[in-house]
Amino acid sequence: MGKGIYVQELPGIGKRYDVDLGSNTQRISIVVRRDGARDLYVFAAGADDPVAVIEMSEEQARKVGALLTGTYFSD
Amino acid sequence: MGKGIYVQELPGIGKRYDVDLGSNTQRISIVVRRDGARDLYVFAAGADDPVAVIEMSEEQARKVGALLTGTYFSD
Repeated sequence: MGKGIYVQELPGIGKRYDVDLGSNTQRISIVVRRDGARDLYVFAAGADDPVAVIEMSEEQARKVGALLTGTYFSD
Repeated sequence: MGKGIYVQELPGIGKRYDVDLGSNTQRISIVVRRDGARDLYVFAAGADDPVAVIEMSEEQARKVGALLTGTYFSD
């Protein structure tokens, strides 16, 4: 499971997870803050500045996460 | 759980989930394809074209999903 995920401590903030998406040209980083909030950063290949930053509350992140893991079911 | 998530059938492709992130200025859509692949679309407020599209295999989507739901643990 941990393969392709690189963790970095952000002192006072939380943890940063960089996800290797393989051959794709984009990178994703997720910052999990101590208060549960999560920031999703999307980077284009070779760029240092993210093309998109999505700030999510813990509840919102759970919804999106459930959709991605396939554990979301409507009805 | 389903609150703030809008599902749309994409005939022959799969399902599209639009996630309402509340007061944030960005929208997220996730397309779950029949083969398990997932596309993550990020939209800026008022824009029809996504600012970022991330194509993930089922395995990659599970990793990112686990990070977002808080079920990812290293070690």
